[in-house]
Amino acid sequence: MSTPDFSSGCAYQRGQFVPISEASIPMTDWGFLRSDAAYDVVTVWEGSFFRLDAHLDRFFASCGRFRLDPGRSRAEVAHVLTECVRRSGLRHSYVEMIVTRGQPPWGSRDPRQAVNQFYAFAVPFVWIANEQQRERGLHVIVSEVQRIPPASVDPTAKNYHWNDLTMGLLGALDAGADSVLLRDARDNVVEGPGFNVFAVIDGTLVTPREGVLHGITRRTAIEVARSHGHAVKERELPLAELLAADEAFITSSGGGLMPVTRVNESTIADGKPGRITRQLAQTYWAWHQLPQFSTPVPY
Amino acid sequence: MSTPDFSSGCAYQRGQFVPISEASIPMTDWGFLRSDAAYDVVTVWEGSFFRLDAHLDRFFASCGRFRLDPGRSRAEVAHVLTECVRRSGLRHSYVEMIVTRGQPPWGSRDPRQAVNQFYAFAVPFVWIANEQQRERGLHVIVSEVQRIPPASVDPTAKNYHWNDLTMGLLGALDAGADSVLLRDARDNVVEGPGFNVFAVIDGTLVTPREGVLHGITRRTAIEVARSHGHAVKERELPLAELLAADEAFITSSGGGLMPVTRVNESTIADGKPGRITRQLAQTYWAWHQLPQFSTPVPY
Ligand SMILES: Cc1ncc(COP(=O)(O)O)c(C=O)c1O
Ligand SMILES: Cc1ncc(COP(=O)(O)O)c(C=O)c1O
Repeated sequence: MSTPDFSSGCAYQRGQFVPISEASIPMTDWGFLRSDAAYDVVTVWEGSFFRLDAHLDRFFASCGRFRLDPGRSRAEVAHVLTECVRRSGLRHSYVEMIVTRGQPPWGSRDPRQAVNQFYAFAVPFVWIANEQQRERGLHVIVSEVQRIPPASVDPTAKNYHWNDLTMGLLGALDAGADSVLLRDARDNVVEGPGFNVFAVIDGTLVTPREGVLHGITRRTAIEVARSHGHAVKERELPLAELLAADEAFITSSGGGLMPVTRVNESTIADGKPGRITRQLAQTYWAWHQLPQFSTPVPY
Repeated sequence: MSTPDFSSGCAYQRGQFVPISEASIPMTDWGFLRSDAAYDVVTVWEGSFFRLDAHLDRFFASCGRFRLDPGRSRAEVAHVLTECVRRSGLRHSYVEMIVTRGQPPWGSRDPRQAVNQFYAFAVPFVWIANEQQRERGLHVIVSEVQRIPPASVDPTAKNYHWNDLTMGLLGALDAGADSVLLRDARDNVVEGPGFNVFAVIDGTLVTPREGVLHGITRRTAIEVARSHGHAVKERELPLAELLAADEAFITSSGGGLMPVTRVNESTIADGKPGRITRQLAQTYWAWHQLPQFSTPVPY
């Protein structure tokens, strides 16, 4: 028997580790047919998980919210994630953990009768924005598509309900922008496909609290900002305030803090990545060395 | 080589027909990881598809709306569906056609670069409500969870964004009800997990037009009602009007017209399935014989 090739990524399914190209879920899993699933994404940077505890906390909270059970302890989930990364050998990795509803017995429509399924995979690190975009700052468009409201789907429980983000993104890409930001029904900017948003207004950082995933990178950005003595306000961010901001950036596990330099037809300030943004991004990466945030992978 | 056993259902994936128990989609397909997919469900009753044309029309319209391409003509899709049913041998079948985004090249976050994938399967007929529930009428609860609004996700393009329906259903089942109805932000009842809703008010049928999937069964119910000389209004259905209705029923490919006899704490009228509802349901099933609605499967 030849050894499987995990170099492009390694997945965990039905109790086994398989190359990412062979990973699948049953077509009849309600995780697919009803997008009935919760997930989380943690990254590995220079061979260590960053804030693994925070991601596990959020994953188990998301599962609880949607009444999904990974059927595994925190330690067991952490072990599977570590194995996926270790087997892939990836030093910089995007690591996803998933629980799906599974499938109730044939004929039943009762989600409570389904056996939930746990999946995971590690693939090469994913950047929300490419190097050129990160250097010059992202150009984003604010979409007319509204973010799915919290009254419908709890945005703090990480989920795959992305049609609004996807349709918004398609519109933005067609218009030549790099990405998209969505608003709520009251014209406040909330978040984008895979990221939170910050504005720097008169020296204070403003980021939405309601209607968004509470990103771990968002939390880290807030902590980094406070460590530098900047004030942070978690509150509504009207589009007009974002357009008039001194600086703007997005946050995601897929790239940390990334400057935004253009929103719709307007540049943010002089159209160059802001000073505070660059300072915080630098500290964000430096914090990857902190022992309390770092879990080395035993390759 | 032994012949595959398709008797529990037959699926089509990556150009091949496989037993439903072996059907899968890649874990990395955005159809799963972003619920970036469109689908439709048509039924086979007594060996014939019912209103196959209407379902194909809606499927291609959903795909167009979400910029997904099945990569197949109508005739080719119809052929795959027919083959799934024929191979399974099922005379009463629930037949699903699906297009997923697929996956863009590694590293890309651009949905336009993905190769869309087409899937299909036929399984035994699925009933939204069991026989006892259909006889006595369904007991439904109106959830506090709001249906995802059209400003976020187009409900007329059939999609898997069901978290709101699933969370509502869980609450209703816990409370001992059979199913759930969701409202929009203005307290109008819209739809439930897999069905539309009708109220009979002073001899007129009322069913919501906005914020819902335009069910093929809903359309058939409207046509049946008009053929019996009943007036039909497609308009908002405030919860209060539903509670005070003379009759109520739901419509779904998974069972046709099914009476609702209890909503929250109140019975609908005397709590028995209504006369008009029973009349329309009977004609609904009779219409399955009409040649213009019927496409026999060549088993
Ligand atoms: C909708 C949404 N918002 C925000 C984020 C950012 O969260 P984090 O910083 O934990 O990666 C993500 C991450 O994928 C997301 O999907
Ligand atoms: C959300 C929703 N509404 C309504 C319906 C009923 O549509 P149809 O009558 O075409 O089955 C469905 C069918 O699955 C549905 O998913």
